Amino acid sequence: MFESAELGHAIDKETFDAAVPALREALLEAQFELKQLQRFPVIVLINGVEGAGKGETVKLLNEWMDPRLIQVSTFDQQTDEELARPPAWRYWRQLPPKGQIGVFFGNWYSQMLQGRVHGYIKTAQLDQAIDGALSLEQMLCNEGALIFKFWFHLSKKRMKARLKELHEDPLRSWRISPLDWQQSKTYDKFVRYGERVLRRTSRDFAPWYVIEGADEYYRSLTMGRILLDGLQAALKAKAPPVSPPHSAPLTASFDQISLLDSLDLSQQLDKLVYREQLDIEQARLATLLRDKRMRRHSLVAVFEGNDAAGKGGAIRRVAAALDPRQYRIVSIAAPTEEERAQPYLWRFWRHVPARGKFTLFDRSWYGRVLVERVEGFCQPADWLRAYGEINDFEEQLSDAGVVLVKFWLAIDQETQFERFKERENTPFKRFKITEEDWRNRDKWDAYREAVGDMVDRTSTTIAPWTLVEANDKRFARIKVLRTINDALEAAFERR
Amino acid sequence: MFESAELGHAIDKETFDAAVPALREALLEAQFELKQLQRFPVIVLINGVEGAGKGETVKLLNEWMDPRLIQVSTFDQQTDEELARPPAWRYWRQLPPKGQIGVFFGNWYSQMLQGRVHGYIKTAQLDQAIDGALSLEQMLCNEGALIFKFWFHLSKKRMKARLKELHEDPLRSWRISPLDWQQSKTYDKFVRYGERVLRRTSRDFAPWYVIEGADEYYRSLTMGRILLDGLQAALKAKAPPVSPPHSAPLTASFDQISLLDSLDLSQQLDKLVYREQLDIEQARLATLLRDKRMRRHSLVAVFEGNDAAGKGGAIRRVAAALDPRQYRIVSIAAPTEEERAQPYLWRFWRHVPARGKFTLFDRSWYGRVLVERVEGFCQPADWLRAYGEINDFEEQLSDAGVVLVKFWLAIDQETQFERFKERENTPFKRFKITEEDWRNRDKWDAYREAVGDMVDRTSTTIAPWTLVEANDKRFARIKVLRTINDALEAAFERR
Repeated sequence: MFESAELGHAIDKETFDAAVPALREALLEAQFELKQLQRFPVIVLINGVEGAGKGETVKLLNEWMDPRLIQVSTFDQQTDEELARPPAWRYWRQLPPKGQIGVFFGNWYSQMLQGRVHGYIKTAQLDQAIDGALSLEQMLCNEGALIFKFWFHLSKKRMKARLKELHEDPLRSWRISPLDWQQSKTYDKFVRYGERVLRRTSRDFAPWYVIEGADEYYRSLTMGRILLDGLQAALKAKAPPVSPPHSAPLTASFDQISLLDSLDLSQQLDKLVYREQLDIEQARLATLLRDKRMRRHSLVAVFEGNDAAGKGGAIRRVAAALDPRQYRIVSIAAPTEEERAQPYLWRFWRHVPARGKFTLFDRSWYGRVLVERVEGFCQPADWLRAYGEINDFEEQLSDAGVVLVKFWLAIDQETQFERFKERENTPFKRFKITEEDWRNRDKWDAYREAVGDMVDRTSTTIAPWTLVEANDKRFARIKVLRTINDALEAAFERR
Repeated sequence: MFESAELGHAIDKETFDAAVPALREALLEAQFELKQLQRFPVIVLINGVEGAGKGETVKLLNEWMDPRLIQVSTFDQQTDEELARPPAWRYWRQLPPKGQIGVFFGNWYSQMLQGRVHGYIKTAQLDQAIDGALSLEQMLCNEGALIFKFWFHLSKKRMKARLKELHEDPLRSWRISPLDWQQSKTYDKFVRYGERVLRRTSRDFAPWYVIEGADEYYRSLTMGRILLDGLQAALKAKAPPVSPPHSAPLTASFDQISLLDSLDLSQQLDKLVYREQLDIEQARLATLLRDKRMRRHSLVAVFEGNDAAGKGGAIRRVAAALDPRQYRIVSIAAPTEEERAQPYLWRFWRHVPARGKFTLFDRSWYGRVLVERVEGFCQPADWLRAYGEINDFEEQLSDAGVVLVKFWLAIDQETQFERFKERENTPFKRFKITEEDWRNRDKWDAYREAVGDMVDRTSTTIAPWTLVEANDKRFARIKVLRTINDALEAAFERR
C-alpha cells in the first residue's frame, strides 16, 4: 500500500516555483466559489507518519488559500465534557459548515491508530473503530460533504534522517515534538496498522491519498493538485444526484393492519389510582436518578406522537419528579441557519447529555422519517438512509452508557378531534392549535404508515420504541414514567 | 432587607386555585408573544435560602408555561473547558436567545455567596464579584434582555422546620440534597452576605424580588404575578428607547491632528534583514508557545486595520511559525442567525481560547466602534457604550491569564490605492476587492476619527493597542511578531 510512497519522489525547485502561482490562483477561486455556493462542506483528514510534513502541509494550505475559510481542528486529549459523551461527539462539534473547509489534524484515524500501536485496544476493537469511521464518512458524504483523506508517508530510513536533520537546525528544532521521537520507535507497528486502516477505509466516496512526504515540493504540489481536482469536480457537479437506493420500496402492509391498530386505546386509569401511581413512579425516578450508578449513565427520552396526543403533558409529569439541575427539555422545531449548514444529525448531537444528565426531546431525529417523509420535505433517498443512520447514532449513544427510551403517543382520530376542539375553546391553549394541525389530519394514514415503518426499522433491543396508548392521558403518563424507570433499573443491573 | 419575607405570608388554597387559571393563561399568552416578536430574551435568576422552594418554583414555571421555550441552566462544578477560560464564559454560553426564557438556577450570585460563606474568598473579592455581576447585567439589559432576580427567603426557624418536614415524608425526602442540610448550619452567614449582595445589586434595570418561601401558594402566586407584570410591561413597550447617553459627545480633535498622522509610515525593512528577523521572531514565538508557563496563559491577537493594510499576510506570518494544533484563526463577518439572537459580545465569547491556546481574530469586537459606527449599522448609544463593555470584556480575559495584543495596521491612501489596483490585476487576488472597498475610501476621515477614539478609549495597560506602520509589509509583519513575543515574555515574567 505504501510502496509508491517510498520511491523517493521529488520535484525540483524550478518546477515547483513555476507551478505554484497557477495552482494557488485556482485553489483560491475554487475556495471562493465554495463559499459563494454554500452547498457543501469540505473535510480534509491529515494522517500519516511523523516527520512526513503533516503540520507543514496544513500550514501551507493556510498560506495558499484563504485561512479565514479554513478551520483547523485538532483532537488531543479529550476534555471532561468530551469524555462524558460518546466518542464521536468531539468530531461532530467541530464539523465545518457548508461553504467552509475543515482540516482535521488528529482525527478518528489517529485516535484508533495510537490506541492500537500502544496496545490500549486489540485488533478486533480497531476493526470496530474502522467500521465506525466508515459509517460516519458515508453519512457525511451522503449529506454532501466532500472528504479528502491524506496519508503522508516516509520510509523508516527517511523518517529517521528527517527527524535528525530537523533536530540539528537550531531555528527549526522547535518543530519536533516529543511525540515525533516516540514514533520513530514505533514506526513498524504504526505502518502495519496504518495499512490495515487504509485498506479497509478506502472507499469510492472517501478514498485515501498516500503521498510521499520526504520532498517538500513534491508533497505540497501533489496535495495541492489533488485538492484542486476534487474541489473543481465537486463544484462543477450540479447538486449531487439524489436517487433512491437500488432496492425494493418499503412494503406497505398489504392487509392494512398496522402496529398502531393493534393497540388497545380504551385502556384508562381512574383518577385516584393515577394520583397514587404518579407519586410512586415520580419518587422512583427521582431516586433512580440520584443513584450512584447513574454517574456511569445518562438518560435520553424521545417523545413523538400524534398532534394533541399529550406529549407536553407527559414531559411535564416526568420533569415534575426531578431536580431541574438534572434535566433539560429540548424542543425540536425548524432548524436554525447554523443547523442547516450541517448534516441532519448535528442538531441532535449538540444536545447529547453528559453522563449523569437527562435530556427530554420533544420531537426528535425521527422528524426525518415522520414529518419530513410525509410532507415531502426531503428526498426519499434521504429518509430511507435515515433509518440506518439513526440506528448508528443510537448505538453510539448506547455504547457510551446512554439509556435511551423512545415513546410514540398514540391516540385515535376522534380523540384528536375532541382535543383540537377543546384547545380552540380554552383561551390559554388556543395558541397550541393552528390551521396546519387541522390540515395534518388529512394525512392520518400516511403518518400511520410512516410510524409503522419507523418502529419496524428502529425499534432495537438497545433502543426500543414504546407505543403508548394515549387516549387516556393518565394511563399514558404512568406508562411513560414506568417505562423510563424500568429501563433505568435494567441498565443499572446490567453493569 | 428580608424583614417582609419573614412575616409568614400565606394564601389559602381556594384563593390560589381561583387565581391560577387566569394567571396561567396570561403567562402563556405573554410567552407566546415573546416568541413571536423575538425582540428580547428573558433571564430569570433563582437564588435564596435552601428549602424556600427554589426548585419547586422552577418546576412550576415549567408546568404553568410552555417548557419548550424555557431553558433551565444550572451551574454546578465547572468543567475543565470552563475552568480553562474566564469565569463568565460558562454563563455566556448558556444565555437564552431572543424570544426565549432562560432560568439560571445556580448563577453568579450563588457562586459568589458559596465562595464567601465557605471562606474561599474575602469580602473585598465578594465586592469585586458583585461589580462584575452588575456590569454583566447592565450590559444584558442594554442589549434588551429582561432580567428577573428572585430571592426566595425563609426565616431560620422556618427553614429548619421545612427541611425536617420534607425529610419525614418518605415520598418527598428525595427532594433534599446533602447541600440542603449543610446550609442549615451556615444559614446566618448566608443571609448576612446575601443581604450585602442584594443591597448592592438591586438596580432599576434589574431589581431583586424577595419572596417568602414558606407557603407554597403565596410563593408561587407572587412569583407568577411579578413575572407576568414584568413580561407584559416589556412586551407593551415598543422597541426600547435608544437615546444617546446624557453626556458631551466625543470630542473631535480640533486641530485635525490624529494619532494616525503621527505614525512614520515611511519605515521599511530590507528584504534580507526581513528574512533574517522573520526566522528569528518566528522561532521565538514557537519557543514561547511551547514554554511551560504558557499553560497558565492563553493568547489572543486582534487584527484590525485599513482595507488592504495586510492583515491576512501578517496573520499568515504569525501562523506560519506555529504548530496548527495551538492556534485558531477566527474571521469575523456578518453574524449568523444564532449570533444575532444574542448580545453583541456573544459571538466573540464563544471563541475565547482555552488555556495554552492562541486565537487570532481577523477583525473583532472592535467592529462596533469602527465599521458599525461609521456606517451607521448601530445607534450612537450602542457604540458609545461599547467602549466600556469592551474594556470590561478585556479585563475579564486578562484576569483569566489571557495575553491580549491588538493591532491596527495603518497605511496611507496612496498605498491603499496602489494595492487595490494591484489586486484587481492579480487574478487570484481579484476576489479580495469589491465595489464596497472603493466606496469605503470616501469614508477615510470618518474611519480615522473612529480609530483615534477607539485607541484613546480602549488602549489600556492590560490590553494596549499597537499601531503598526504597514506601508511596508515586511516592516509591519516583523513589528507584529515582535510585539506578540514581547507581550508573551512580559506576561511570563510577571508571574
